[in-house]
Amino acid sequence: MHTISQYQEIINNHFDHLKTIKDPKNLYEPIDYILSLGGKRMRPVLTLMTAEIFNASYEKAINAATAVEVFHNFSLIHDDIMDDAPLRRGNQTVHEKWDLNTGILSGDAMLILAYQFFESYEPTVFQKLAKLFSKTALEVCEGQQYDVDFETRDDVTIPEYLKMIEYKTAVLVGAAMKMGAIVSETSNENANLIYDFGLNLGIAFQLQDDYLDAFGDPETFGKQVGGDIIENKKTYLYLKALEFSEEEDKEQLLHLFSIQPNDNINKIDSVKDIFMSSGAANATQEAIKNYTMKAFETLDKMDVSNDKKNILRAFGEKLMKRNV
Amino acid sequence: MHTISQYQEIINNHFDHLKTIKDPKNLYEPIDYILSLGGKRMRPVLTLMTAEIFNASYEKAINAATAVEVFHNFSLIHDDIMDDAPLRRGNQTVHEKWDLNTGILSGDAMLILAYQFFESYEPTVFQKLAKLFSKTALEVCEGQQYDVDFETRDDVTIPEYLKMIEYKTAVLVGAAMKMGAIVSETSNENANLIYDFGLNLGIAFQLQDDYLDAFGDPETFGKQVGGDIIENKKTYLYLKALEFSEEEDKEQLLHLFSIQPNDNINKIDSVKDIFMSSGAANATQEAIKNYTMKAFETLDKMDVSNDKKNILRAFGEKLMKRNV
Repeated sequence: MHTISQYQEIINNHFDHLKTIKDPKNLYEPIDYILSLGGKRMRPVLTLMTAEIFNASYEKAINAATAVEVFHNFSLIHDDIMDDAPLRRGNQTVHEKWDLNTGILSGDAMLILAYQFFESYEPTVFQKLAKLFSKTALEVCEGQQYDVDFETRDDVTIPEYLKMIEYKTAVLVGAAMKMGAIVSETSNENANLIYDFGLNLGIAFQLQDDYLDAFGDPETFGKQVGGDIIENKKTYLYLKALEFSEEEDKEQLLHLFSIQPNDNINKIDSVKDIFMSSGAANATQEAIKNYTMKAFETLDKMDVSNDKKNILRAFGEKLMKRNV
Repeated sequence: MHTISQYQEIINNHFDHLKTIKDPKNLYEPIDYILSLGGKRMRPVLTLMTAEIFNASYEKAINAATAVEVFHNFSLIHDDIMDDAPLRRGNQTVHEKWDLNTGILSGDAMLILAYQFFESYEPTVFQKLAKLFSKTALEVCEGQQYDVDFETRDDVTIPEYLKMIEYKTAVLVGAAMKMGAIVSETSNENANLIYDFGLNLGIAFQLQDDYLDAFGDPETFGKQVGGDIIENKKTYLYLKALEFSEEEDKEQLLHLFSIQPNDNINKIDSVKDIFMSSGAANATQEAIKNYTMKAFETLDKMDVSNDKKNILRAFGEKLMKRNV
């Protein structure tokens, strides 16, 4: 087995050596650009790690891992267009640096390129990977659509919200791990269990992201603390606060989420007060714990050595302890 | 064997019964909308026809045919965004009827759905279809990028233009036919020959489209005659006219392709005069004939009965005789 940072280095080296620049340059340069912006490479790391958990070499999983990361970056390009985002990882987004059409077309090409990375596998493995990938990619699109729809709805329920983050974020974490399992040719049972491990950890991770967006340490949290509140985003914290609050607090919260003041400091403080006093903050931490536990429970049923289970558990614990 | 109109009916019935409408509605309704706008269904018709040419039932090819048509419609949605087109087949384009984000996301979902239609085939056939599909889809993106790039270039060469229409249009015609061959499990040689047949016929078809755009019968040509001239499009006719013209005509043509008059009648007439007098019109007809011949020559090498070859030849002749 390797460490997380070793896997990250393997992935980064691999992308450094992938020469995607060919003609037409206006199609392939943006692809090279977004892939070179880096990031934690969490998803492909999980693919490599899972392959080794199930006793295959990480080399065997590198093409599947590459597909997952290329797909993830495709979704970033198109999401950034939809969100009109100027920056990605501190750099200009593709549609800002080039233009809208380049963002659309380079994204399309990346979605296709992702499938091509599976072509090195023999037909049965190829079909399993491509089927899982298509199902997952479609769910990510559905999750993005729910996210867009929720912006203009005021009756979003907690189960709907959970389904949205499951599709938009968690299924790709589950699929990244399951691909490592498929490549290793372990049992279907193990492959499904590791998918559930990743899925539940992915949901916990996204809920934690919601939580840290309000209560994280500005020094260590990667994004602007309070960003979701400024954007009136209906996160788990917000939906739980509405559910738990008495009439007066509820009205205040609805009011606060209808305004866009120039100075957001008071708004952020008031919203966080309600998140705390309503019990929403606690309920969110509870939910994070529950989904993490659910992930760990899948390990009990998995047919793999205890030291491998400990590696997965340690990874989950490290992931869930960031910046709180 | 069936007739073209029978294949068209089979395809249209098939799409009528494909229930793609599920949640989230804002993702799937636009997909159902664009697929219901119809069109000639030329590409999926060719997939069914080719399967029968190589002695398989058309039923075996229906999922591959569906994938091709879904992909084609994906490319229409995204191209219409890039071209800022208000209408498609006389109806509102997806991004006009809904919005930009819906156009991007529903298009993305269709590209993924296209791959899913291959999943019904057994692994070896699945891999062959998916590989051909990915290669083709990427070439279509490259062709679209060249087309976009050419708009702002004044040094486009004839070989570059031919490569652009090959990638943007012809490879999908070749691939649609080759998929019918793959599904029928005929020899690789036959599969490659039918690809070349479709590819060359596709180039001939696109060159004919260029020709008819200027010289077609307004009564029977589907689009506005002179549309390419109004939009200053660098078609085969235009590039050949520049190549063949003396200095004076060349300058006039460059001037005519730099203006956007309110009334285009004089512009269209003047440009068509130069297309004729320079010999560009003749050269285009010559090129159409050559690519059609090249397509027909692949039939000589094909290992299939003469009556099947005659069906392919009759199809090609019918296609190339439209509206001239």
